[in-house]
Amino acid sequence: MGKVRVDLNVSLDGYATTTDQTPEDPFGQDWTRLTGPYVATRTFRERVLGQPGKGTTGMDDDYAKAYFEGIGAEVMGAGMFGLHEHPGDPDWQGWWGPNPPFGYPVWVLTHEVRPSLEMEGGTVFHFAQDSIEDVLAKAKEAAGDLDVRVGGGIRTARAYLAAGLVDRLHVGITPILLGRGESLWQDLRGLEAGYEVFSETAPSGVVHLTFSR
Amino acid sequence: MGKVRVDLNVSLDGYATTTDQTPEDPFGQDWTRLTGPYVATRTFRERVLGQPGKGTTGMDDDYAKAYFEGIGAEVMGAGMFGLHEHPGDPDWQGWWGPNPPFGYPVWVLTHEVRPSLEMEGGTVFHFAQDSIEDVLAKAKEAAGDLDVRVGGGIRTARAYLAAGLVDRLHVGITPILLGRGESLWQDLRGLEAGYEVFSETAPSGVVHLTFSR
Repeated sequence: MGKVRVDLNVSLDGYATTTDQTPEDPFGQDWTRLTGPYVATRTFRERVLGQPGKGTTGMDDDYAKAYFEGIGAEVMGAGMFGLHEHPGDPDWQGWWGPNPPFGYPVWVLTHEVRPSLEMEGGTVFHFAQDSIEDVLAKAKEAAGDLDVRVGGGIRTARAYLAAGLVDRLHVGITPILLGRGESLWQDLRGLEAGYEVFSETAPSGVVHLTFSR
Repeated sequence: MGKVRVDLNVSLDGYATTTDQTPEDPFGQDWTRLTGPYVATRTFRERVLGQPGKGTTGMDDDYAKAYFEGIGAEVMGAGMFGLHEHPGDPDWQGWWGPNPPFGYPVWVLTHEVRPSLEMEGGTVFHFAQDSIEDVLAKAKEAAGDLDVRVGGGIRTARAYLAAGLVDRLHVGITPILLGRGESLWQDLRGLEAGYEVFSETAPSGVVHLTFSR
């Protein structure tokens, strides 16, 4: 049986989202600072940016590699798929183009009833109106011996964490203070119970902290 | 010229105070969990508990030793001295008994006008109605080449941090989620600017993170 995994980048004050996006700078400087060491890794540049042979190696890259390994299915929130910006649009197929970087089935938690979308490269998007527990059960069944990722957004991740359904939480803590946004840690008092905690600091300054069971 | 230093224990979600105190358990379980690795060090047991030769050595103890070294004066809030519980009481001399563990002058930020208190062992408590900047200037002058500690509480520490007056902030981050209390990080967006950040993880699981300039 696989594990249920969450991986996130958060600031030292716990924020997983940023607030300084503008039309001219749609990611924002804070996002660049928050995710910089991850985006700079060889794995991210190869797997996501299509730039083979470039990027950093070492601890941040080891975590980036692990992020992509062993996943057989994913669950994500409606917002992450883009349904908040594109409600009721039958032509919307997500942010990732015709060949999304998943390569496995993805369940999108939404109140919208939509047919499944079969994309190139093995990704199939399913749209589920069930409880987070029932959707996870479907994803686990599809993943078989592989792991299930709870991909995001932050509220979806927090809901699965609060429900005790996550087996491994890895956070890359970037030592910056954002002061506002969505906090990963909100309403998760006592989460550590039942987990082993391990942490180490990369030369980039990112503290990699893992709760696992 | 000495540095201005702040040392605090915080939870992974940033809380520096705990909320589960009861008359039967005046420290509370959360405080024990938050400060456990620090209280267990050889330095804390020798210096604060009077138990020489006992306690842990290693990274947590190295930080505990550094905490006590090189301080020539301290600034603290009225609450830390006990003036919120003992307002207007001329007989109140702080929590620490006749021989407090400071051994140097301590300025207490308060609206109360009180005469200075000369204690055993070199500690003198001064009560200051000035701005945080002016009080710090007095403490710096008294400390000479040694450092000044901003001792606490958390609101006093945050006020000095927000005003850009702290040269070194060391936080021992205990990997537990308290979910409530006073957050160290509140309203400190961008604090990292102008600081070098260094972190490392002790075998106890505590992440020692230091902002210095």
